Amino acid sequence: ISHLPSLFHVFNCRISLFIHSLLLLLFQAFGCYFSTSCHRNTKFYTDPVEAVKDIPNGATILVGGFGLCGIPENLIGGLLKTGVKGITAVSNNAGVDNFGLGLLLQTKQIKRMVSSYVGENAEFERQYLSGELEVELTPQGTLAERIRAGGAGIPAFYTSTGYGTLVQEGGAPIKYNSDGTIAIASQPREVREFDGRHFILEKSITGDFALVKAWKADRAGNIIFRKTARNFNQPMCKAAKTTVVEVEEIVDIGAFAPEDIHVPKIYVDRLIQGEKFEKRIERLSIRKPEDSKAKQKAGDNVRERIIRRAALEFEDGMYANLGIGIPLLASNFISPDITVHLQSENGVLGLGPYPLESEVDPDLINAGKETVTVLPGSSYFSSDESFAMIRGGHVDLTMLGAMQVSKYGDLANWMIPGKMVKGMGGAMDLVSSAQTKVVVTMEHSAKGNVHKILEKCSLPLTGKQCVNRIITEKAVFDVDKKKGLTLVEIWEGLSVDDIKKSTGCDFTVMTCNCRLQEIATKSLYSIIHFLCNFLW
Amino acid sequence: ISHLPSLFHVFNCRISLFIHSLLLLLFQAFGCYFSTSCHRNTKFYTDPVEAVKDIPNGATILVGGFGLCGIPENLIGGLLKTGVKGITAVSNNAGVDNFGLGLLLQTKQIKRMVSSYVGENAEFERQYLSGELEVELTPQGTLAERIRAGGAGIPAFYTSTGYGTLVQEGGAPIKYNSDGTIAIASQPREVREFDGRHFILEKSITGDFALVKAWKADRAGNIIFRKTARNFNQPMCKAAKTTVVEVEEIVDIGAFAPEDIHVPKIYVDRLIQGEKFEKRIERLSIRKPEDSKAKQKAGDNVRERIIRRAALEFEDGMYANLGIGIPLLASNFISPDITVHLQSENGVLGLGPYPLESEVDPDLINAGKETVTVLPGSSYFSSDESFAMIRGGHVDLTMLGAMQVSKYGDLANWMIPGKMVKGMGGAMDLVSSAQTKVVVTMEHSAKGNVHKILEKCSLPLTGKQCVNRIITEKAVFDVDKKKGLTLVEIWEGLSVDDIKKSTGCDFTVMTCNCRLQEIATKSLYSIIHFLCNFLW
Repeated sequence: ISHLPSLFHVFNCRISLFIHSLLLLLFQAFGCYFSTSCHRNTKFYTDPVEAVKDIPNGATILVGGFGLCGIPENLIGGLLKTGVKGITAVSNNAGVDNFGLGLLLQTKQIKRMVSSYVGENAEFERQYLSGELEVELTPQGTLAERIRAGGAGIPAFYTSTGYGTLVQEGGAPIKYNSDGTIAIASQPREVREFDGRHFILEKSITGDFALVKAWKADRAGNIIFRKTARNFNQPMCKAAKTTVVEVEEIVDIGAFAPEDIHVPKIYVDRLIQGEKFEKRIERLSIRKPEDSKAKQKAGDNVRERIIRRAALEFEDGMYANLGIGIPLLASNFISPDITVHLQSENGVLGLGPYPLESEVDPDLINAGKETVTVLPGSSYFSSDESFAMIRGGHVDLTMLGAMQVSKYGDLANWMIPGKMVKGMGGAMDLVSSAQTKVVVTMEHSAKGNVHKILEKCSLPLTGKQCVNRIITEKAVFDVDKKKGLTLVEIWEGLSVDDIKKSTGCDFTVMTCNCRLQEIATKSLYSIIHFLCNFLW
Repeated sequence: ISHLPSLFHVFNCRISLFIHSLLLLLFQAFGCYFSTSCHRNTKFYTDPVEAVKDIPNGATILVGGFGLCGIPENLIGGLLKTGVKGITAVSNNAGVDNFGLGLLLQTKQIKRMVSSYVGENAEFERQYLSGELEVELTPQGTLAERIRAGGAGIPAFYTSTGYGTLVQEGGAPIKYNSDGTIAIASQPREVREFDGRHFILEKSITGDFALVKAWKADRAGNIIFRKTARNFNQPMCKAAKTTVVEVEEIVDIGAFAPEDIHVPKIYVDRLIQGEKFEKRIERLSIRKPEDSKAKQKAGDNVRERIIRRAALEFEDGMYANLGIGIPLLASNFISPDITVHLQSENGVLGLGPYPLESEVDPDLINAGKETVTVLPGSSYFSSDESFAMIRGGHVDLTMLGAMQVSKYGDLANWMIPGKMVKGMGGAMDLVSSAQTKVVVTMEHSAKGNVHKILEKCSLPLTGKQCVNRIITEKAVFDVDKKKGLTLVEIWEGLSVDDIKKSTGCDFTVMTCNCRLQEIATKSLYSIIHFLCNFLW
């Protein structure tokens, strides 16, 4: 380079400073100097079409919401107008036929959905089965964590969710050919052991754009969410090159305590105040003022028997996640003397009963998309945080239904091959933690006395060796992942032989000896306890 | 099992119900039925010794705080009294000689520290170098993420932080023998490529106990933090079998909006209102009312030259993280016409100037542990969230000092072999994102005209091929990780030959042609811009 000096412009540094100042002005006017993802002061829009019109065909778009709760209605409307095609939409659900992402399905703007549960949409099903739509099903917690990882610069992580299932094995149909054969199948996941447990490798998800619904923004671009409408919106804000947020209200800077900002302005590239919010409710559930808990949902005899027995699993101070149906109904029979904290995976701790008609709030639903209430001391959080709580083993009890359970605790409850697959939702995550007790509540046999408790599940698994207890209308089994089943309770009037006949695998029977000993101990303590209470 | 039925007690289900009710009472009285980590209603304490007295010798304890900000003073006091020995303390820092964890070092209760920066403590240094204390240094963001992963049920994850450094290579001294040889060395990390970039595998951290300092709790056990005193406290709450939290105030249920609870009660096992909080300040930094920004920190000629040039890197709306020293001083020279959002990795976005004496707040410090203020629109968050922001590439610019930089952008600024190693703090994380521009500000040569810009760094690296620009008092280089250095500016009166003499590797010189063309373009736009401003 020795011949170059004469060509080199030796700057006078004062001139250099001046040039740089000019350069700064230039950058202000013409955009970004270095970064490909250019974080600048949040830009405010008034027209949702303007806010999304540069989203190109084929873009990957992260779309917030859980069911119809907290979805970016106005921005989805914007996409309808821009007519962008070939979208890969990463969103927990796919809306309903005439609302939410369902609208973009009707116009065939979506090429692929990456979701955990997609069951509410007839047009969706038609397009998927006819090979017009690609569907990548991902366990809900894994989906949330993959998005969180995408925002956090983590390219991949290990999780126990999905180990031993189709998620790990691969081969699930992402796209069908028109003849019903599989055109694109899901990839298998790597398995690895840590401390004797099995985990699978999952990769992060990032988007070209994120479309997010928040409650309020300040004029700096900081945003906050309301109740369970936070869900996937929070992690999605952080995982896209460009994040577009619609809010119900824009407030002055300083209106939020700096400690309580849910997403700092650094993640909010574009902001718009939505013109209107329909906030459609997917499953309106209300209670009447006169409903007593007990009579509220008296089911048939078999169901009620399971429900009442399931209710005995609750202990004072316990944190529990209850599946829709029997488990949730069991919570109506929790003794008034104890407190059980109910978690719902869409981001709430401290669920209460269904709302009175006057209390219904579309921003407050449970994981079954039913309207709910919360009790004093409750809290809301995002989906990634919720599944961190679940996967991390902080929930004491998860109770859920099953189609099949194996002798060693394998659980199948999400998929019947040949039937439309709606997705695993959060079930695989809920049973994936070694620290959480997993209780299955189900009828002992399927229609026609077909066994549901089996040597080995024939249906695709939700989780491997994950069930700790089975409660049916006939019996209660404890499950040991190495030793198998032990019959610990039996319904009045039934014999062990009756149970054997209706059970598809062998089991140990808890002997009288140890059982009676247990009872003796219990009685002793309960007498002491009773006396203590009495004397105080 | 056919011989067993006679032994089997066929329960009458009503009796079974009764027994179960008794059983529930029993569980209430005597603890946990199933989980090893038993989440129950938060238990309230009044004596910090009572709250920690069951922590056994050899326990792993996660201790919250950043520097002396947000440390559990009262619980540390409790450990001093219980005298528990052989602690593995996971804590970003190790306190100072007579405060924080430094107190437990003096009593030799700590066997191992897992930290990112430990430099403020003479007794620490003595114990480490004499082989009495084990020290596992971990990049700050990796530490935060490992703890977050521990709480979230993620056993391991990949990160770019530390790739190509001693962290990846292993062999760093964790424990010395008394003769100064290494007794325990750090383990190497697995390397893996994702999308052409290199990442290393890091494993999660969990604790037997977490000792946490929060601001307030409600009577249900939900907690909130204040300003930058959140830091590591939030993720640590979730990563221990038993979490013990001390707060300044306990308030009624309902005092916190459910959306604004920083850590839900599910993570808070024990709670105590601290008797007193000294909240010692590590680096009191104040500004006087009459300080003008510009004259506030006029340094020597060389430093000021670098500072003023560094200030030209700022662009309007940019998010930047500035190292202590020249980078932070450069922020005093940001043009009043532009807004630059300053991030500090201890958990704040929107840093302002040093506080007036009356504004000093021990709960509000920067990453250099100096007291600071924030500007309107700022936000606070935890350390794991802060490094997710950094690692995820959301910060546009990181500016920091260096001991050496290589031709291809390797950076060395944290360790001189043979000298006491204080730790990498957050530096490895700050330079690890591909989306963030990394600007090094430093004197062109070390004492005795020893080259600092080199073909290859001789000191241990902070990051590999991570530097994008070098600013010295003599020149500015752009760095391409494949093509090497290009000289783009030169100080008044110096020649390219002068730069060549003081630079330890070859470099390209930006030719007059392209440089002049750039200037011409800039001038054109600036004239347009000037006219626009003028006409409006």
